Amino acid sequence: MAEDFKVTPWEVSGEVDYDMLIERFGTKHVDNALLDRMSKYGELHPLLKRGIVYSHRDMDWILDRYDAGEKFYLYTGRGPSGNTHMGHLMPWIFTKYLQDTFKVPLYFQLTDDEKFLFNEKLTLDDTKNMAYENMLDVIALGFDPTLTKIIIDTNCIKTLYPIALKTAKKITFSTARAVFGFENSTNIGSIFYTSIQAAPAFMVSEIEGKNVPCLIPCGIDQDPHFRVARDIAPLLGYYKPALLHNKMFPGLQGTDKMSSSQPNSTIYTTDTPKQVRKKVMSAFTGGAVTVEDQRKNGGKPEICSVFKYLHFLFEEDDKKLEELMIKCRNGEILCGECKKSLADSMVNFIEIHQEKREKARDKVQDYLFCED
Amino acid sequence: MAEDFKVTPWEVSGEVDYDMLIERFGTKHVDNALLDRMSKYGELHPLLKRGIVYSHRDMDWILDRYDAGEKFYLYTGRGPSGNTHMGHLMPWIFTKYLQDTFKVPLYFQLTDDEKFLFNEKLTLDDTKNMAYENMLDVIALGFDPTLTKIIIDTNCIKTLYPIALKTAKKITFSTARAVFGFENSTNIGSIFYTSIQAAPAFMVSEIEGKNVPCLIPCGIDQDPHFRVARDIAPLLGYYKPALLHNKMFPGLQGTDKMSSSQPNSTIYTTDTPKQVRKKVMSAFTGGAVTVEDQRKNGGKPEICSVFKYLHFLFEEDDKKLEELMIKCRNGEILCGECKKSLADSMVNFIEIHQEKREKARDKVQDYLFCED
Repeated sequence: MAEDFKVTPWEVSGEVDYDMLIERFGTKHVDNALLDRMSKYGELHPLLKRGIVYSHRDMDWILDRYDAGEKFYLYTGRGPSGNTHMGHLMPWIFTKYLQDTFKVPLYFQLTDDEKFLFNEKLTLDDTKNMAYENMLDVIALGFDPTLTKIIIDTNCIKTLYPIALKTAKKITFSTARAVFGFENSTNIGSIFYTSIQAAPAFMVSEIEGKNVPCLIPCGIDQDPHFRVARDIAPLLGYYKPALLHNKMFPGLQGTDKMSSSQPNSTIYTTDTPKQVRKKVMSAFTGGAVTVEDQRKNGGKPEICSVFKYLHFLFEEDDKKLEELMIKCRNGEILCGECKKSLADSMVNFIEIHQEKREKARDKVQDYLFCED
Repeated sequence: MAEDFKVTPWEVSGEVDYDMLIERFGTKHVDNALLDRMSKYGELHPLLKRGIVYSHRDMDWILDRYDAGEKFYLYTGRGPSGNTHMGHLMPWIFTKYLQDTFKVPLYFQLTDDEKFLFNEKLTLDDTKNMAYENMLDVIALGFDPTLTKIIIDTNCIKTLYPIALKTAKKITFSTARAVFGFENSTNIGSIFYTSIQAAPAFMVSEIEGKNVPCLIPCGIDQDPHFRVARDIAPLLGYYKPALLHNKMFPGLQGTDKMSSSQPNSTIYTTDTPKQVRKKVMSAFTGGAVTVEDQRKNGGKPEICSVFKYLHFLFEEDDKKLEELMIKCRNGEILCGECKKSLADSMVNFIEIHQEKREKARDKVQDYLFCED
């Protein structure tokens, strides 16, 4: 049963055993020693404290370099296949915390080429348009415009392509097939694609003509791309990129990853307050079948998606979260109350985000990288 | 024995049976009917009359469209892995004849990315520098600068990449492996590459927003790339590119293809007159072992590389060539005389070419396409 899940850059299915994923992928736990060390640069983000950003590669090395005066840069991104939802925002919010804490540059890649290649139905115009829409959400989060550059792959390809070529030359079909599970029917663009996703991890070193450490905060599902990139980095004379992995943001219907394939389980940044409220009010919870039953036996916050949302993003106060859990287990609070409270928080968040998102339309030029 | 040869875009080995290649590849002979038709647009080029440009795909369709007022464009190219040699010039000379005859645009692709990906030893700087050097030879041939644009892949990638993506999405790994003979150890850049070589065949249609016929004059060894491109063209709504294939230019040591892996068999456009003369004077001929024997029994022009050179490029007069063949067979002429005569012609050609090649350095900007 624990084996019965799948995590690739293009598919997350089954009930994910995140500890087993660390074993499978060969990453390291974000342990207390690392958390202690990170806390010295500023207050730990709740996503770290709560074990949602839970796995890493070489984060200690990044801090060693940083302490020695060698600044790293951040690299993360998004595959623009549809509207942005809360599951996308979570790692970006965490990335902003890293930028604010360490005062380092961020390169944000929008992979319009990837989503075109991997999605039968999408045209390149679709994914380019979606890249623009997704970019508004990135900008709305308030990344420092003097430190943040957004890469749209097809626009920046003149910069990315030579690095991707060097990367691709070192990756055999065997390796790509083993890591990504490609088949004979996979198109040749998809096979090549990982070199484009690797490129920003080497790009700054290439541009500056000397090695610059790179830290990639991302979902653990994206690790395979960077595992390959790390393997070949020394062959090209680059540092291996370091990674900080987060768990997947859950869906509202109890699934392990919020996904656009389940719109009712998914809160988009473009949803109206009414839509947000409706989706939250019909969320899967850990409540009992009847009020009487729940008052008597309590609910199960450990399986409740409303509780997960509070845990992941919407209740930053550890004490309040703990109290809520106890109340739920004791039957002192009913699902309706929790859902209403979450809906209020989310509507509030979305309303503010949408205002900033509108203003972002005028800021696009400040963020775009290498419109070559 | 006739099966014992291999022709791929990256390897020509064994004694090539060109008629069998037409069967294997599924192309058509340039027959008398087609030659008759082509002669109506201008005097036939010797390479056509002599069966060196001997195979095609849809050349009749190109002429149909042309007659109906729909102009085609020419597309050919070169993989810049080393200096230009006579074997490269031959199809370019033929391409110039096509441009002069039909007054049509030419896009000339220099595939610095390909040669980097397929050659373990070459860096991207090597192949870019070589692209520049090769370009000088193209310009020196006197292509009309108002109708001719030279594409260096890594410089024009912003234009090529979106078309390559559309192409790549339609080509499975199975297809690429079957056509190009890829293995598990092939790098993922090489697997993707054919989509970059296909891109110029669709590029003008893409830019103009309507279908424009494309004619590709090239060595028959390049056919696999365009066979794949033709298969997927209808899926993308493009015309299939048409092709005119030439046989390989022979090496001076009797091999089927002049190749940089045999420098003594190869005349480079950058060779000194002394080097040219020396290589020609030590060419493989069809002569007998002794002068007496040759005077008595004659030579064998059919296996003589000197004769092949005259046939391919350096004796345009059919009558003179015929006379020479008879004289050789009758023992009336010795190899030394033939070699000296060819050396004189080639030195003369090279001296004039090198002068034009130097002047080409100032014309580069007139020819470069989309330095995006």
